[in-house]
Amino acid sequence: MRNIKMTIEYDGYRYLGWQRLGDTDKTIQGKIEQLLTEITGTPTEIIGSGRTDAGTHANGQVANFKTASAMELKEMHDRLIRYLPNDIIVKKLEEVPEWFHSRYHAVGKTYQYYVWNHAIPSAFERNYSFQYPEPLDLDKMNKACRKLIGKHDFLGFSALKKSKKSTVRTIEDITIHQEGNLLRFTFTGNGFLYKMVRIMMGTILEIGAGSAELEVIDTIFESKVRSNAGMTVPSQGLFLDEVYYD
Amino acid sequence: MRNIKMTIEYDGYRYLGWQRLGDTDKTIQGKIEQLLTEITGTPTEIIGSGRTDAGTHANGQVANFKTASAMELKEMHDRLIRYLPNDIIVKKLEEVPEWFHSRYHAVGKTYQYYVWNHAIPSAFERNYSFQYPEPLDLDKMNKACRKLIGKHDFLGFSALKKSKKSTVRTIEDITIHQEGNLLRFTFTGNGFLYKMVRIMMGTILEIGAGSAELEVIDTIFESKVRSNAGMTVPSQGLFLDEVYYD
Repeated sequence: MRNIKMTIEYDGYRYLGWQRLGDTDKTIQGKIEQLLTEITGTPTEIIGSGRTDAGTHANGQVANFKTASAMELKEMHDRLIRYLPNDIIVKKLEEVPEWFHSRYHAVGKTYQYYVWNHAIPSAFERNYSFQYPEPLDLDKMNKACRKLIGKHDFLGFSALKKSKKSTVRTIEDITIHQEGNLLRFTFTGNGFLYKMVRIMMGTILEIGAGSAELEVIDTIFESKVRSNAGMTVPSQGLFLDEVYYD
Repeated sequence: MRNIKMTIEYDGYRYLGWQRLGDTDKTIQGKIEQLLTEITGTPTEIIGSGRTDAGTHANGQVANFKTASAMELKEMHDRLIRYLPNDIIVKKLEEVPEWFHSRYHAVGKTYQYYVWNHAIPSAFERNYSFQYPEPLDLDKMNKACRKLIGKHDFLGFSALKKSKKSTVRTIEDITIHQEGNLLRFTFTGNGFLYKMVRIMMGTILEIGAGSAELEVIDTIFESKVRSNAGMTVPSQGLFLDEVYYD
């Protein structure tokens, strides 16, 4: 069997998220599997590097699938671009060794979160950012980011009640880039728990707005209790930017 | 009567264009008039600086309306932001002298046109650019822009069959800005004929792709025949960026 790796960009606005859900064709995975099944002539399942929630976007989601089809990669790529909806774009298609698994072998990810920080909302950023009108203190937010960086138990920053598996993760970097009214927060780490980026982001924003103190981050790390953390910011500001492999 | 000037940003994707069309509420003008009529309690008409086509966007469309309402500007602005659809944003509301007319007094406009120039389309730019996969020669396109700049009869670059009014316009500047795969063409002039930006743009692209020669521009200026010009590029790449007043 051939093993094929795909790098996928999608605008999540119209979808219920990455993961296939029964018969609905309102998921990214469902849409791609449906088409690959038609193209290859046999039922085809794809393995994503991880799920993304309803409304969340991706610049570089990674998935792989096994197929017995002999179709040339270029031909397959052309068909994927031609027949997928225009808000799902397969950017790259590569032949990989049969052992490659896009979830198990991922060693890190980068997510981006966009905040539109102005009293007047934006017609163009409405589905691609969190429109947050209150003034934000960039210096305080940078300090919050530096507190989050490193190896910690992030259970208190996740939507998990408890976990049998380890909830220790390493955040390598969090940066804030400002361009006009748009703030881009970039999170890079070896793995992220369920809703972890959105809860960290909510906590950073509350610290930036002055409604929470910097020390709340220590409290959450120590208590591991999610209720100490900030709001879960909306899914439409979130982009899965890149998935890393060795 | 008070005269109020509005600066409006809109994502034209869901709309049939600026101009009110009978009873449909699928136009920008229609949406705003409907809400202003509710807010002020009397039928209110707005005058736009000009029309935009179905699918075309605006960063800074300008319109004005007369009203007897005594409502404070701030209160009116808040309601416009709250109750208009989130793809139409009134960015600014100002009291202006009663003689001000947003169409008659406009002395110039800036339009932008976006081209996504790559073999792989973009999920995010699909409604905000023309996806044009063929390689483009930036140098040739810059030369084409320089030929278009100046005072000319642009009848051949318009969708008008003929015109009783003057079709002479002055293009002050056309610039090309490249950021990754996205090209932004900025057109500034004292006025633009019907579909003039999209036809100039189509001509520039054909010159850039090598399917037309630079000299075609002279031919169009001399013949004033639209069939000599390039294609009319799609409306969704076009943004009315700014309208100027003395």
